[in-house]
Amino acid sequence: MSLMTDCMAGKTPDDIKIVAEKEDRSVDYVRQMVAEGKIVIPRNTNREIEPIGIGKGLTTKVNANIGTSGDKADIGFELEKLAAAEKAKADAVMDLSTGGDLKAIRAEILGKSIIPLGTVPIYETAIKMIDREIAMIDMTVDDIFSTIEDQARMGVDFITVHCGVTSRIVDMLLRGDRLIKVVSRGGAFLVEWIHYNKQENPLYEHYDRLLELANEYELTLSLGDGLRPGTVLDATDISQIHELVVLGELVERARKAGVQTMVEGPGHIPVNEVEMNVQLQKSITKEAPFYVLGPIVTDIAPGYDHLTSAIGGAIAGAAGADFLCYVTKAEHLCLPDPESVWEGVMVTRIAAHAADLAKGIKKAWDWDRSMSEARHKLDWEQMFKLAIDPELAKKIRNQMPPAEEKVCTMCGEYCALKKIGEIKP
Amino acid sequence: MSLMTDCMAGKTPDDIKIVAEKEDRSVDYVRQMVAEGKIVIPRNTNREIEPIGIGKGLTTKVNANIGTSGDKADIGFELEKLAAAEKAKADAVMDLSTGGDLKAIRAEILGKSIIPLGTVPIYETAIKMIDREIAMIDMTVDDIFSTIEDQARMGVDFITVHCGVTSRIVDMLLRGDRLIKVVSRGGAFLVEWIHYNKQENPLYEHYDRLLELANEYELTLSLGDGLRPGTVLDATDISQIHELVVLGELVERARKAGVQTMVEGPGHIPVNEVEMNVQLQKSITKEAPFYVLGPIVTDIAPGYDHLTSAIGGAIAGAAGADFLCYVTKAEHLCLPDPESVWEGVMVTRIAAHAADLAKGIKKAWDWDRSMSEARHKLDWEQMFKLAIDPELAKKIRNQMPPAEEKVCTMCGEYCALKKIGEIKP
Repeated sequence: MSLMTDCMAGKTPDDIKIVAEKEDRSVDYVRQMVAEGKIVIPRNTNREIEPIGIGKGLTTKVNANIGTSGDKADIGFELEKLAAAEKAKADAVMDLSTGGDLKAIRAEILGKSIIPLGTVPIYETAIKMIDREIAMIDMTVDDIFSTIEDQARMGVDFITVHCGVTSRIVDMLLRGDRLIKVVSRGGAFLVEWIHYNKQENPLYEHYDRLLELANEYELTLSLGDGLRPGTVLDATDISQIHELVVLGELVERARKAGVQTMVEGPGHIPVNEVEMNVQLQKSITKEAPFYVLGPIVTDIAPGYDHLTSAIGGAIAGAAGADFLCYVTKAEHLCLPDPESVWEGVMVTRIAAHAADLAKGIKKAWDWDRSMSEARHKLDWEQMFKLAIDPELAKKIRNQMPPAEEKVCTMCGEYCALKKIGEIKP
Repeated sequence: MSLMTDCMAGKTPDDIKIVAEKEDRSVDYVRQMVAEGKIVIPRNTNREIEPIGIGKGLTTKVNANIGTSGDKADIGFELEKLAAAEKAKADAVMDLSTGGDLKAIRAEILGKSIIPLGTVPIYETAIKMIDREIAMIDMTVDDIFSTIEDQARMGVDFITVHCGVTSRIVDMLLRGDRLIKVVSRGGAFLVEWIHYNKQENPLYEHYDRLLELANEYELTLSLGDGLRPGTVLDATDISQIHELVVLGELVERARKAGVQTMVEGPGHIPVNEVEMNVQLQKSITKEAPFYVLGPIVTDIAPGYDHLTSAIGGAIAGAAGADFLCYVTKAEHLCLPDPESVWEGVMVTRIAAHAADLAKGIKKAWDWDRSMSEARHKLDWEQMFKLAIDPELAKKIRNQMPPAEEKVCTMCGEYCALKKIGEIKP
């Protein structure tokens, strides 16, 4: 029995109760939504962590990607990033390592992290081939599945699997006129494999095997968008939507098998197409939780992509996206450091919270109400306490302290709040 | 004859030609839109600056607020902020000084700045009273108008005038249940004056006198939103919309008098109400240029309000807002420093650009296309050249340089762009 089939059978596993409690929703609601595949609670049977819910009617969640690369494979550095992400209150973290001893790094991160952990197993699969000096395109179906099983056994809570990159889509993609064909690493591995082997994507062809594995370990599938647009010029194009259509079919099959499933989404999307992209995903997948990577709303701002992504994330969240993957300011430039991770989580939490206001989530409104009441009273201690990043707020204010404690140096004695407070109606 | 009446008469002043050229629009289009009051070109007859156009069919513009306060009245500091704003390519700047020798500071800024300068004359009017130890509420109509005329004579290009804060609205406001009644400094001065004097707002009552003055100096009026919401809890409430309705009438009167007019907008607005607010302003004012302050989409992030405002600004711009007033990370905490000004302008330019993509502006798309082509080719020199902030992009990349020059340390040899580039279709 999986969490989902338990819920379908009307049982109430503890994870349902915990999520209902944290989210101010009824147990019945959360159970029903899990049963319908509209909420997922990614927690491997081999993992002892506090469960979080992602999906319809819940607060918008935030994921932070960490992980090594060939250029920088330093486990200490990654653990610092993990600590920064958790301190900044990320809801989940993904280990996207591609450098160093991948298994050892994953074990360390799994041992330390207190929040759900995701991976992209195709990375390890491909890199193991390369390490054994075998061409990546000679990777077998068993290579892929043994890596997935190995990761599942270790306790990974959710995995990105690019099952929708079918051979038909790859053919069209390579003959087509997309400006930047692939920006997903996992997508690129699979496109290459499919193209040279002239075979179907193993993760699509053997999807039932994947579902069995997922069921065994209560592994949540995050159906990856291997063909997400990598520039606003390619946004919402036929490759992206074709893949989404395939993912819609796969969500349906996962639900029938009792496997929890999310769908990943773009990518680089201009502001005016973000809402439509969310509506489309929700419609095609019958409201599967939507995990968006950004979306980044313009390509011209490397160094500020935490911001371009927060803009897209806030709009996507308000339109119904459930899970925002952060983007750091290092995106398109280098591997992020702990400071970029901290800032990336913070700005993405702000976007998620802005989305929660739009979604009408009561505890989000309560937070803004409390802050606004403190601001109205010019109660600085309370304002700092309620700020999403109290230390930063205090630091900035203290850079230029006011002569009169009640106000700030922006307006000083002409503070509108102070003046209006003095009026006797 | 004003610029607007010239355009109505079918003449083509140089400013129209310059704006048309810069914006890739026809001279006829720009002239027609200025004649209809849908584009403004704020440039005082006494000022020699490059004109910029703000309004329908043009790129979204960015304003940076600078200026002293009682706590920090240092002209050198303000000139540094002006330089930072101009270097970061702000389109306009407002001197909101309330501390020190206001006239001398304004003269210095006017002398140095090469972009349109705006002010809020009610600040100087009120502060002059206080300096003369006269209660602000004893300010006369002539006090206000002589200050405006003085500033106009000096060359100020646009002024914020809170003409829509009528006595009827103030009555309702003070008796109402708004959480934070007023956050506009100018609004607060006027609310206090109106309340204690039991008289009509002089800027409303003597609006024709204001129009005459504006005509004499080609002063663009920016009709201020003295009652803009100061928390998302108060967003789109009756006070805000009541004031907007009055501004709609005043826009109409300004157009008849040939006076260029913008309308200022909120403020603090949740993501899901931003587009509606823009549509409402456009409908009520018959497409007057909309100058938005943010909007900030949540109250809980002091220290990150450049970001909360960029989210709101991008959405507002995409919905048709024409002019984004930046908010810096110092907002709600202290007066900004030059670094905050730089960053504030940058993130607001990114929001404006994201909006321009949504507006379908060709040169915005050309920029993203060029950047994406450079990215596709892994042409780093070109990427840096095209980045909105080349120095920052270079600095971040150089913090962790890759072993292989072509890629970056995020993915290293597994760079999707590199891999896909190697595939022979």
